[in-house]
Amino acid sequence: MNIDTSKSLEWSELDQRAVDVVRALAMDAVEEAGSGHPGTAMSLAPAAYLLFQKIMRHDPSEPAWVGRDRFVLSCGHSSLTLYIQLFLAGYGLSLDDIKRLRQWDSLTPGHPEHGHTAGVETTTGPLGQGLGNAVGMAMAARRERGLFDPESAPGESPFDHFVYAVCSDGDVQEGVSHEASALAGTQKLGNLVLIYDDNHISIEDDTQIAHSEDVAARYEAYGWHVQEIDWTDGGSYHEDVEALYRAVLAAQAETERPSFIKLRTIIGWPAPNKQNTGAAHGSALGADEVAATKQVLGLSPDTRFDVPAELLEHTRRAVERGRDARAEWDGFLAAWRNGAGERAELFDRLSSGKLPEGWEKALPSFEASTKGMATRKASGEVLSAIAPILPELWGGSADLAGSNNTTPKGEPSFIPEEYSTKSFSGNRFGRVLHFGVREHGMGSILNGIALHGPTRPYGGTFLVFSDYMRPAVRLASLMKLPVTYVWTHDSIGLGEDGPTHQPVEHLWALRAIPGLDVIRPADANETAAAWRTLLEKQDRPAALALTRQNVPTFDRSDLGAAEETAKGGYVLAEASDGKPQAIIIATGSEVAIALEARDRLEGAGTPTRVVSMPCIEWFNEQDDSYRQHVLPPAVRARVSVEAGIGLGWRELIGDGGETVGIEHFGASAPYQTLYEQFGLTPDRVVAAVHASI
Amino acid sequence: MNIDTSKSLEWSELDQRAVDVVRALAMDAVEEAGSGHPGTAMSLAPAAYLLFQKIMRHDPSEPAWVGRDRFVLSCGHSSLTLYIQLFLAGYGLSLDDIKRLRQWDSLTPGHPEHGHTAGVETTTGPLGQGLGNAVGMAMAARRERGLFDPESAPGESPFDHFVYAVCSDGDVQEGVSHEASALAGTQKLGNLVLIYDDNHISIEDDTQIAHSEDVAARYEAYGWHVQEIDWTDGGSYHEDVEALYRAVLAAQAETERPSFIKLRTIIGWPAPNKQNTGAAHGSALGADEVAATKQVLGLSPDTRFDVPAELLEHTRRAVERGRDARAEWDGFLAAWRNGAGERAELFDRLSSGKLPEGWEKALPSFEASTKGMATRKASGEVLSAIAPILPELWGGSADLAGSNNTTPKGEPSFIPEEYSTKSFSGNRFGRVLHFGVREHGMGSILNGIALHGPTRPYGGTFLVFSDYMRPAVRLASLMKLPVTYVWTHDSIGLGEDGPTHQPVEHLWALRAIPGLDVIRPADANETAAAWRTLLEKQDRPAALALTRQNVPTFDRSDLGAAEETAKGGYVLAEASDGKPQAIIIATGSEVAIALEARDRLEGAGTPTRVVSMPCIEWFNEQDDSYRQHVLPPAVRARVSVEAGIGLGWRELIGDGGETVGIEHFGASAPYQTLYEQFGLTPDRVVAAVHASI
Repeated sequence: MNIDTSKSLEWSELDQRAVDVVRALAMDAVEEAGSGHPGTAMSLAPAAYLLFQKIMRHDPSEPAWVGRDRFVLSCGHSSLTLYIQLFLAGYGLSLDDIKRLRQWDSLTPGHPEHGHTAGVETTTGPLGQGLGNAVGMAMAARRERGLFDPESAPGESPFDHFVYAVCSDGDVQEGVSHEASALAGTQKLGNLVLIYDDNHISIEDDTQIAHSEDVAARYEAYGWHVQEIDWTDGGSYHEDVEALYRAVLAAQAETERPSFIKLRTIIGWPAPNKQNTGAAHGSALGADEVAATKQVLGLSPDTRFDVPAELLEHTRRAVERGRDARAEWDGFLAAWRNGAGERAELFDRLSSGKLPEGWEKALPSFEASTKGMATRKASGEVLSAIAPILPELWGGSADLAGSNNTTPKGEPSFIPEEYSTKSFSGNRFGRVLHFGVREHGMGSILNGIALHGPTRPYGGTFLVFSDYMRPAVRLASLMKLPVTYVWTHDSIGLGEDGPTHQPVEHLWALRAIPGLDVIRPADANETAAAWRTLLEKQDRPAALALTRQNVPTFDRSDLGAAEETAKGGYVLAEASDGKPQAIIIATGSEVAIALEARDRLEGAGTPTRVVSMPCIEWFNEQDDSYRQHVLPPAVRARVSVEAGIGLGWRELIGDGGETVGIEHFGASAPYQTLYEQFGLTPDRVVAAVHASI
Repeated sequence: MNIDTSKSLEWSELDQRAVDVVRALAMDAVEEAGSGHPGTAMSLAPAAYLLFQKIMRHDPSEPAWVGRDRFVLSCGHSSLTLYIQLFLAGYGLSLDDIKRLRQWDSLTPGHPEHGHTAGVETTTGPLGQGLGNAVGMAMAARRERGLFDPESAPGESPFDHFVYAVCSDGDVQEGVSHEASALAGTQKLGNLVLIYDDNHISIEDDTQIAHSEDVAARYEAYGWHVQEIDWTDGGSYHEDVEALYRAVLAAQAETERPSFIKLRTIIGWPAPNKQNTGAAHGSALGADEVAATKQVLGLSPDTRFDVPAELLEHTRRAVERGRDARAEWDGFLAAWRNGAGERAELFDRLSSGKLPEGWEKALPSFEASTKGMATRKASGEVLSAIAPILPELWGGSADLAGSNNTTPKGEPSFIPEEYSTKSFSGNRFGRVLHFGVREHGMGSILNGIALHGPTRPYGGTFLVFSDYMRPAVRLASLMKLPVTYVWTHDSIGLGEDGPTHQPVEHLWALRAIPGLDVIRPADANETAAAWRTLLEKQDRPAALALTRQNVPTFDRSDLGAAEETAKGGYVLAEASDGKPQAIIIATGSEVAIALEARDRLEGAGTPTRVVSMPCIEWFNEQDDSYRQHVLPPAVRARVSVEAGIGLGWRELIGDGGETVGIEHFGASAPYQTLYEQFGLTPDRVVAAVHASI
């Protein structure tokens, strides 16, 4: 990129005063709330101000501007670091909002919440996640560039921008940051700049009690471009903003590696008594210390939330600069559009958030077959079929590509060319993601990709390892991000790998997460319908639980249509006289067992309905009349069949119902043996129906 | 330690043949099973054989020998690496067991299962966990040394031994291994030796697609002692066992740092066509390739499971060597016992697995108080009270010590002296653990400590971050390890930190894990009873969910006794006439709300019982008559009250019941506001009771 690394920083006396006012606001806001994290907001004030006022390309009037640089505050507890910059730059936050920190319905909750406060690019707080999000954003930016403008030279495209992230000691201690950072090194994400606030303090005070590693050396080992700045160097604390500025310019100029800037700060600076203490990290400083600190800063100890008008006027020039930058970029985009052809159409479609007209016609339909096909395989065929018409859809696996069936046929990998292998060849603008054995990193990266836009990511692993990525899945749900999880090997049907690899509690543990759709299709055609339904939703993550083993592809001529999957639950096989004496509710691979049990029951004179229930969340969204049509309240004899714990089934089967499942861990053996030994059989279902009647 | 690093390895022709037979057995076993992981078992054969036959101090006749070295196979998918050594060394595994790999009820399941197969020190398979277990074992060994024999010089105590671990590319990619390894560096665990099998292959074949970091440099950054051995060095593959031996000796001699030995191998060596491929990692090689490989090894291509008698006789000398070593050690222990006094008594008590007579008298009892106390605070007081008489109990927090109340008063930290801080001073034999912001590492380390014995570990973080450590919690449950989790800030009662920090789905998501006791005490005295009850159980992990906010300490004169906590659920407040018209079932901080609702209902003429249900798992273990006494089937009007999702409550409240809970994420505000806004109020409980009646 054409970065002039010799240009010097304009840093006026007003800028310095503004930084000091940031510190005062941080102290005042926490004091007002009675709790919060003032220390880092104080010591990071110069760095954050530098980014928002001097470095980043952004437009406070248009927080969703496609061309903007992204800013991620991975240490979300220091939310004031972000809120105060948003206030100063003119993102719509007012001084009153700062005063209402951590209060009901305020725009300034304890941790930054994406979708709640304009300018907050991601929800952070659980440590390490923001760092992973930033890596995902940087990857998404490169994919975006590849989709719309792959030929331009670096720095010459409207789709070139930077991702800046700030993280803390806690972030780099968390395993998820290791996973994401290692992958960022492999991916050579030159558009990523990470500032590590190395302040040696966390909640248990001096971090040396638990933290002695050389973090900079570790990032070098990952292949990052590493710079170190020590504001404590030379005995007295000197906030050398110019040095940080030059480091950021050098980071921008480095296009072949992500950049790591280790910035040694003193937390709570310049609080005379509480700087450099754990107390400054997570508690109000107290009125006396606040007053004393304001005196050190040359501010009046008696005023609170004092932002001089000329100072705000100075910082709000960010609005004008942002508008100018965006206008310039609009011209840049228009020039690109001229020669972009179909790429411009794609850009417009993705900007609108719409799927292409008639896209669903590309979905495969699967022939009935008693031998059938694993739903993971059906999912792979769906991906291969829709990949050509949905270029926004991309993803991969945490080192289980062949098992998860996450690789659409013929698509190149998203990887620096030089890392292509015999098995996978690709390029920097490729499509298939390779996360390595890094489920948690994958989860946080998928969130970053979805947050960045405009593409739609998915990621796969075994269902049992959803546990490894659960914190990221929770955040996807909280942020309502359209991320798709392809979790295969979804039960003891996994077989020989045994209990460490067999999910039994996971379906219900995942259904427990508010806002996550958990879909367990019964056959290949339900799998296609599941993909169709989830892709048509944009406001939530979805998890596919798919079988390793073959399941029959049902002959639908006498059964409910697979398209009913969209309703979450539907009558798959009606009782012979249309008046069920009992209902069997089953999911996934156990639906076939339910159908077999029904045959026997019908044969023995018990009219039995089978309901396929691939997604309880979708079913619960249907209206009462539909739900009562599927599960008539009068039919109290109900049996759930699912190869896992029964936990939540009582809600659907009622007091008289019976569950057929597994209330313990699995075992290592061929799966047919396990189904027999653990009683997931038509016999047991029949017995359960009798018990329920 | 007195390690003679110059001594040379005795490696006979028989040893070399044995190693080649290991490879043949690995191929045969996977071929017989039809699935499995032959490649690593083949290429790690020399390293594993070296450890079991030439290096480790162990006794196949007594796998539980206190003085043994520990061996952890973190790459559990290569279970044959371990099984075949156990077979050769004489741990009781037979050739038939090897033939029954991955079959129902065999001693050789797909992944090694602790408690199932003698000699398996931990259950591995989910990657990275074994590495964390090994770090925990090394910490436990040091704590054990400190409890029983702190004065002896290094290498001079019967309690000195080594922990050896073998890990793969996947292990070092996983975040949990970063967390545990960084902490191992800080802890200067000189008794830990990790061999990293650097074979450049994982399931997606050549790892460069996702893995380019310099792992050795990373471990140097953690402060480990790092050695590199490259068996591919010099163009042709040469398994230089002597070099590995010398590296292990050097690792043993290094007492101030954990040791990392990077061992470059070729997976599947020497299979002529499938070596160095992803295919060799996780699939049977096929009959032709097996035969061809046997020919390369100079073995007959036509025989299967062929272990010549003289060869087995050679390797089974490990039994005699082990008995001799143990006899020598027994003398060593006897000498120690002579001067050990109370320490010997402690050793005997801990060896017996018993708590000291009358220990429960040390438990505090808390005065009734309407202001009350947070249950996390009560938990802290319990720990301080019992710490002096239960030296086996130790633990700490993932950087939330002050919040989790996990530090018993006056106890030193477990930390190299030189890392003591103003806030925490300690020594290498100290007691209070500091995990840093590393919940997942903490979980795997706690498992390692419990596996090692004889101490009893606990670890704390916020309940919401149980997600970060969930894979380790699952393994604790699977292994039935007596680990205790101190998870505080257990609901929206956390307040201002907002939805990222407020658990709503976690209680049920944790209750979903088979074998985990989830305990949410209602007040200080239930908290003491919970600790008492869980410490008396040795066969499972337990999770305490504790409040941040104060809850009343109930006046028990008119209420059920707090000791009833041991039953999991009990009648806290009986309906006024002893004949309840409705039952309110509540847990933790919501029990007080239930009592207030009951007062109103009783006042308005509705006889209402309040059941406190701190632990559903314990309640479910009671007999039918007790459970029906607490929840009479005839009383159908039931309301559950818990500040989280309702998921599993239907099982206890029945079709007619109502749940009072929160089916969505929380928000940032003072907790009292959240309770009001989200309707966790006596009013709503009263209304729910009316609806249920």
